[in-house]
Amino acid sequence: MKKSLTINASRLHQRIQDMGKIGALPGGGVCRLALSKEDQTARDLFKQWCQDLHLKVLIDAVGNMLGVQEGSQPELPMVVTGSHLDSVATGGLFDGPLGVLAGLEALQTLQENGYDFKRSLAIANFTNEEGARFTPDMMGSLYIKKGISQQEIYAAQSIQAPHVSFESALQRIGYQGKNKLQDLPFHSFVELHIEQGPILEQENITIGVVEKVQGIYWTEFHLKGVANHAGTTPMHLRHDAGYVAAEIATLARKISQQFAGQVATVGMMQFSPNLINVVPQEVVFTVDLRNTNHDLLEQAYQSLITQAQELANKEGVTLVAKSLVQFAPVDFDAGIIDKVEHNAQNLGYTTRRMPSGAGHDAQMMAAICPTSMIFVPSVAGISHNVKEFTHPAHIEAGTNVLLGVIQELLEE
Amino acid sequence: MKKSLTINASRLHQRIQDMGKIGALPGGGVCRLALSKEDQTARDLFKQWCQDLHLKVLIDAVGNMLGVQEGSQPELPMVVTGSHLDSVATGGLFDGPLGVLAGLEALQTLQENGYDFKRSLAIANFTNEEGARFTPDMMGSLYIKKGISQQEIYAAQSIQAPHVSFESALQRIGYQGKNKLQDLPFHSFVELHIEQGPILEQENITIGVVEKVQGIYWTEFHLKGVANHAGTTPMHLRHDAGYVAAEIATLARKISQQFAGQVATVGMMQFSPNLINVVPQEVVFTVDLRNTNHDLLEQAYQSLITQAQELANKEGVTLVAKSLVQFAPVDFDAGIIDKVEHNAQNLGYTTRRMPSGAGHDAQMMAAICPTSMIFVPSVAGISHNVKEFTHPAHIEAGTNVLLGVIQELLEE
Repeated sequence: MKKSLTINASRLHQRIQDMGKIGALPGGGVCRLALSKEDQTARDLFKQWCQDLHLKVLIDAVGNMLGVQEGSQPELPMVVTGSHLDSVATGGLFDGPLGVLAGLEALQTLQENGYDFKRSLAIANFTNEEGARFTPDMMGSLYIKKGISQQEIYAAQSIQAPHVSFESALQRIGYQGKNKLQDLPFHSFVELHIEQGPILEQENITIGVVEKVQGIYWTEFHLKGVANHAGTTPMHLRHDAGYVAAEIATLARKISQQFAGQVATVGMMQFSPNLINVVPQEVVFTVDLRNTNHDLLEQAYQSLITQAQELANKEGVTLVAKSLVQFAPVDFDAGIIDKVEHNAQNLGYTTRRMPSGAGHDAQMMAAICPTSMIFVPSVAGISHNVKEFTHPAHIEAGTNVLLGVIQELLEE
Repeated sequence: MKKSLTINASRLHQRIQDMGKIGALPGGGVCRLALSKEDQTARDLFKQWCQDLHLKVLIDAVGNMLGVQEGSQPELPMVVTGSHLDSVATGGLFDGPLGVLAGLEALQTLQENGYDFKRSLAIANFTNEEGARFTPDMMGSLYIKKGISQQEIYAAQSIQAPHVSFESALQRIGYQGKNKLQDLPFHSFVELHIEQGPILEQENITIGVVEKVQGIYWTEFHLKGVANHAGTTPMHLRHDAGYVAAEIATLARKISQQFAGQVATVGMMQFSPNLINVVPQEVVFTVDLRNTNHDLLEQAYQSLITQAQELANKEGVTLVAKSLVQFAPVDFDAGIIDKVEHNAQNLGYTTRRMPSGAGHDAQMMAAICPTSMIFVPSVAGISHNVKEFTHPAHIEAGTNVLLGVIQELLEE
């Protein structure tokens, strides 16, 4: 067994810090919304680093970027790693950039050790993974798996400024490319990411071996009752949209307890007219349901919809349930899952097989080629927050595992 | 038994319509916030009508107005009727003005019939009953019963424009008077008002004989949990402020069913950060509890607070409950209640004894002198709404009852 290569942790650390200066917020963290000026600067820096390593930079019609180390047999499908450089409005330094820059670090380590590339190795920066400026999220990787048309993406409007289209924003930053990444032959995809949850830290484990991504159902409920005086309207004559919303929110919690592995969140709730002494006339709220088991997720969803309708009927309130998102769970490739696990264990790291609770570009890539992910711990499980943090030792561990997996994939 | 006098319904109708033009909204209804330009114009019109009837117009330091028909024995305590001319931002033509203008109509009818006033009769327009621009509501009548100081009222800031004080707004409209209405001797107070609820209409009754005003407890709950990712945070590790808010809102409904005559409303609810895929970190919401029985109201309140705290503890969410308002129920005077009832029945109207669900100036006046109210039906129970409506026949009936009650009071 040959000695494992190891990455240059301080160089990677420096790149993460340098990237974190772009769109830096005064109190820490970053704001680097997709296709913003800050995203442009981040892309420029990534492109520069790719060129410094003599990679060929390919860009497609929606701004997805690939930095490609061509192998001696370029006809072989390429190994791909990477993630995204965009952030939410108050994001951290790791969600996204870690996967891109760790990929670059692994590639550079191979170069420095005189690795003989037969297959090509590519580092991906996918456009608009967060969906914080344009919906849907995971837009760039969804486009690569041909799950959304270029036309549909171009027409997407900025959440913050509805007159700004994706197309105009992309043109303004100069990242509308001509390469057809959709048609490239991909051998495999592996993505290093922070967990964004508390499990690895709580169990004191270094490497999460990601087996699957939870399915996600987002439903928006719109309830319409009758606004009435809070003092003069007898209880039995009320059609209180707020009361029904509260009942459905507690129902969502009950459903999360009835189905194995089910999580349920009511994150958004808007009362109208929202006055202390008026029975609420309208309420809009959302339910986020996730499960790694598609059947259970579907049952939980049906149970929610059926019982919510009963609650609304009982109060004489009309209910419209609009499905915003229905992603089925995604199973990753058993072969790559094994590679992640044994590489981590060979390097002496503790491991745990787990699902991903959040959505990632890897779930889109899984439709095209064998795919899996590597998770490293998030301090206190905090993410999408300027306080997001992952210890340097965990970043180093995760990147070494990534390097090992890439090597094995390149040699297939 | 002498023949009853009857009011001039078309003259009253015309005054209601003329008053409704002041602050009229394009789609119907009015916006006549306290001490606004529109309120000034309404006061000017009321003053003009008083002067046309040779009434003496008294104004106190907070803008309360009394149009006084002096009797031949001015040392006798005066009979007072009236209500308010201010409205909520999207109000109707009846909530408030009906009581003022019906009082004026009753007085004019007495004048026209050569009534020999021994006691004085006064028509009141109380300042800021609605509390829609300055809090608290029922401010002018609260001042007359010496429940709030002039200083406190002057310092009140506009809800819409916090740099505008009550004092500056009052001065701007020129209704800062020098009469000490607080020190006048009041014999009795009776107020005609629309029901603002559905009961009279549903039971097909013309006159509500108001026995009491419900006690009102307003509580603001502030819950603080932990914001977390909706996908990656296991249910048992959550501190979900939104879930606890929903449980407390359903608890409020349960409590309304446990205590006789209890109503409970959660009208205002604010999630933060209010995002579909983030466990809510903070929620602010209100509970409005009302009951005509003070003991039961207090028990309902204690039950709510205790159980809300248990729900918060269970989820690991901190709860702060802030009492915004605690008005005890007010019982009206048995003698005046009887007068309302038999005057209505003598005129051939159907009657029903009932509590007031809403707050009114009469509940403040009840602390100073014998007081009661007359209710007329609200179509569909709608009020605080541009669609507020009461049939002319009901307005005529209520005003004739008011006239009869006033006559009896004047003759005491």
